[in-house]
Amino acid sequence: MDSNKPMAETGPPVLDEEPIQKSGLEKVEEGSPKAPVEIKLSSEAPPKKQRRAKLKAKDSSDKAATQLLTESQITALENAFKAGDVEDRGVVDAGQVQFIVQQVLGDVLTVSEVRTLVQKGEAVGAATGVINLQEFKDLLIDLLHTTTTRWGALQTSLDGYVGFDTVLEQQRKKFLKKGFEFNLMVVGESGLGKSTLVNTLFKSKVSRTSCTNEPPQKIPKTVEINTVTHVIEEKNVRLRLSITDTPGFGDQVNNENCWLPIYDQINKQFDKYLTEERSVVRRKQIPDSRIHCCLYFIAPTGHGLKALDISCMKKLHDVVNIIPVIAKADTMTIEERDAFKDRIREDIAEAEIKVYPSSLLPEDEDVLQANAPIRKHLPLAVVGSDRALTINNKSILGRQTKWGFVEVENPNHCEFSFLRDMLLRTHMQDLKDTTHEEHYENYRRQKLSEEVGENNGAGA
Amino acid sequence: MDSNKPMAETGPPVLDEEPIQKSGLEKVEEGSPKAPVEIKLSSEAPPKKQRRAKLKAKDSSDKAATQLLTESQITALENAFKAGDVEDRGVVDAGQVQFIVQQVLGDVLTVSEVRTLVQKGEAVGAATGVINLQEFKDLLIDLLHTTTTRWGALQTSLDGYVGFDTVLEQQRKKFLKKGFEFNLMVVGESGLGKSTLVNTLFKSKVSRTSCTNEPPQKIPKTVEINTVTHVIEEKNVRLRLSITDTPGFGDQVNNENCWLPIYDQINKQFDKYLTEERSVVRRKQIPDSRIHCCLYFIAPTGHGLKALDISCMKKLHDVVNIIPVIAKADTMTIEERDAFKDRIREDIAEAEIKVYPSSLLPEDEDVLQANAPIRKHLPLAVVGSDRALTINNKSILGRQTKWGFVEVENPNHCEFSFLRDMLLRTHMQDLKDTTHEEHYENYRRQKLSEEVGENNGAGA
Repeated sequence: MDSNKPMAETGPPVLDEEPIQKSGLEKVEEGSPKAPVEIKLSSEAPPKKQRRAKLKAKDSSDKAATQLLTESQITALENAFKAGDVEDRGVVDAGQVQFIVQQVLGDVLTVSEVRTLVQKGEAVGAATGVINLQEFKDLLIDLLHTTTTRWGALQTSLDGYVGFDTVLEQQRKKFLKKGFEFNLMVVGESGLGKSTLVNTLFKSKVSRTSCTNEPPQKIPKTVEINTVTHVIEEKNVRLRLSITDTPGFGDQVNNENCWLPIYDQINKQFDKYLTEERSVVRRKQIPDSRIHCCLYFIAPTGHGLKALDISCMKKLHDVVNIIPVIAKADTMTIEERDAFKDRIREDIAEAEIKVYPSSLLPEDEDVLQANAPIRKHLPLAVVGSDRALTINNKSILGRQTKWGFVEVENPNHCEFSFLRDMLLRTHMQDLKDTTHEEHYENYRRQKLSEEVGENNGAGA
Repeated sequence: MDSNKPMAETGPPVLDEEPIQKSGLEKVEEGSPKAPVEIKLSSEAPPKKQRRAKLKAKDSSDKAATQLLTESQITALENAFKAGDVEDRGVVDAGQVQFIVQQVLGDVLTVSEVRTLVQKGEAVGAATGVINLQEFKDLLIDLLHTTTTRWGALQTSLDGYVGFDTVLEQQRKKFLKKGFEFNLMVVGESGLGKSTLVNTLFKSKVSRTSCTNEPPQKIPKTVEINTVTHVIEEKNVRLRLSITDTPGFGDQVNNENCWLPIYDQINKQFDKYLTEERSVVRRKQIPDSRIHCCLYFIAPTGHGLKALDISCMKKLHDVVNIIPVIAKADTMTIEERDAFKDRIREDIAEAEIKVYPSSLLPEDEDVLQANAPIRKHLPLAVVGSDRALTINNKSILGRQTKWGFVEVENPNHCEFSFLRDMLLRTHMQDLKDTTHEEHYENYRRQKLSEEVGENNGAGA
């Protein structure tokens, strides 16, 4: 236990607090982790702590701000450390820290929290491969005070209803007042039913061709980027929806650079956001015009991905969440469709195209479970329709032919409802978060690194 | 109507879109604002728009990205403009724009939205005092596409349930997983019951003196800053609560600079956040150690604010949300209390101390209504107690004396419950938002301005 005392001073100054007091710990009984706080409140002074007063007073004169651990937290940390230090060496292996932490918290950390912990543990124990009690505490304080709220057994229990859970309702109110933004992009050759699908998704005429003065038939000679913005509302939730489409994509004789205007457009929106974020006087709410999702339409050829599809998706997958869909899936039988899907999945895997949800990001168990069916079903074979047929007094969206009626929202007919549920009802916020936390951060990191590089270059 | 055409080119390039098409507008009947979108979906091509195709094709070759208005939006904007232009001059007064906008949207804009609009309107019409149709449209597009989701009559209606309202549930899930942070500071002379009040607020031993090894009685010789962090949980909402207290405040012979360590501590947290926000590689979630609220304890003297109170609050009110409370209010009769409160309110007004909620920020009607009772009751006269008495099988927090029992949560006895409701149940999120949007932004703006100044100075 005491062997770590001389090493305590060399511990990394993870936060700017003084070293945690070790006085008075002799009294702690081993193997009996106390409840973090007694539930019964009483105003009695803690018994006899005058002896420690001097120590404390000396420390506090050095530093103005102090982050303190509670007695029960100190006890729990030390007991866990001791339990991990089976050979009583006064140190534990750096690699072991995460298991000790799981033990002391008695709660499941998220994947990213564990990763943070492992990285920091390795950094601290880099030279020796072991971590002493003081280092362990510093590590834990950092984790607990900045990263996780999963404190498990270290949580403080309450003696009655306090009411801070109402913060959810407070947030909801603010959110309803503000509304939110979602920016969708559709990419694919002309004639694949992109506009119709978007109209079907949002049950309204939101696509460009159905609500603007655009000429409906003519294919432009270069790739254009067009954005139409709508506000739609459901149950008082207001959504500013923008739909960006790219007429002319894949429709030229030479389609070599037709990904470029799209790529530029996406980055331009990142740049706009970054400029606002970095300006001295900035808006309370930075307008978000970043593309949150790109629906990539694959022609139902039965022959796998075209070279254009592969090259384009590979150019875009690092800047935007791509969801590949097989357009006009009603042109294929179910068997053909499944074979085609297998083939495309192989092509995607072979070309190492990252589709949303990315499998490269760390995922917790719950996220993994939510994403598994999506991964299994991608690319989604969809049929769009903005015509409804009334059957048994129910209005059903679909496509009527002489030989049958394809129901758009029937999961046995196509995977439209799967796409809609994912895009709007389960993963909409995650698409926005991923755009902000991954794609935008990548852009920002790269841009700032370049600037730093330029400044250094100029200074040299 | 046509008088504005030559001026169109000089309109400010508010967004990077091409000028909105005006062709085909002759057909619009005056005074009949069309429904923004027909609800019945149909896949028919819009009738005869070939004539306009050429115009469009020419424009789009100039610019890659285009932000389009829908036909119904154009119509609505133009009708509103025409209605505002009563004398048919082709222009409207800049000051009039906000009323025209209210009309076209048919929805109530928030105060800050109106303010944005007025400022921009004045900027556009700065030279002439009037705004033409093209300028009006540019202004509106900016407002609609970046600021407000209150589109009123310009909203697109839906033909059925889409499901994006589930975004609230999606956010709730993510929030429950992350938990949240709230950092409270208590400032006031020793012996005013700060620790007890905090324990009473959170119904647990969260104050420093009740959960650490601190010596309970000794008053430090300088102002110390101590922070204790807890995680508490209610209905699966996890809160990382940190309580910062300032032992030694106001307890010295000369208290001249005792606000300084507090001020420094608050700014240090802003700086930490800013450093993280600006670093090239940054965390997904910036740990928030900024003080969201400062409870300032006023001694129940009956004589108004002390000079120390005034000078300290004036130093702090620009960096933190201050809520003044009268401590140990049970030492006063209700009449004394009310007289004392009046007196303090006068002192606060006279010294121009900004207390939370600030009356200098723009407020919407709903916010104003929520804040009115708070403004009326401040400073809140509170009594804290961590002892409960069981009356009729109900446990009631209070203070038992020979001459009576003060119930802490009884609004007839003191204003504790009012404080708790405001702090935790109605304004917790707003305290956090105000800290981020006002105090932190002020700090950031000042810091970045200084840097710019330094760089310019160095370069000169």
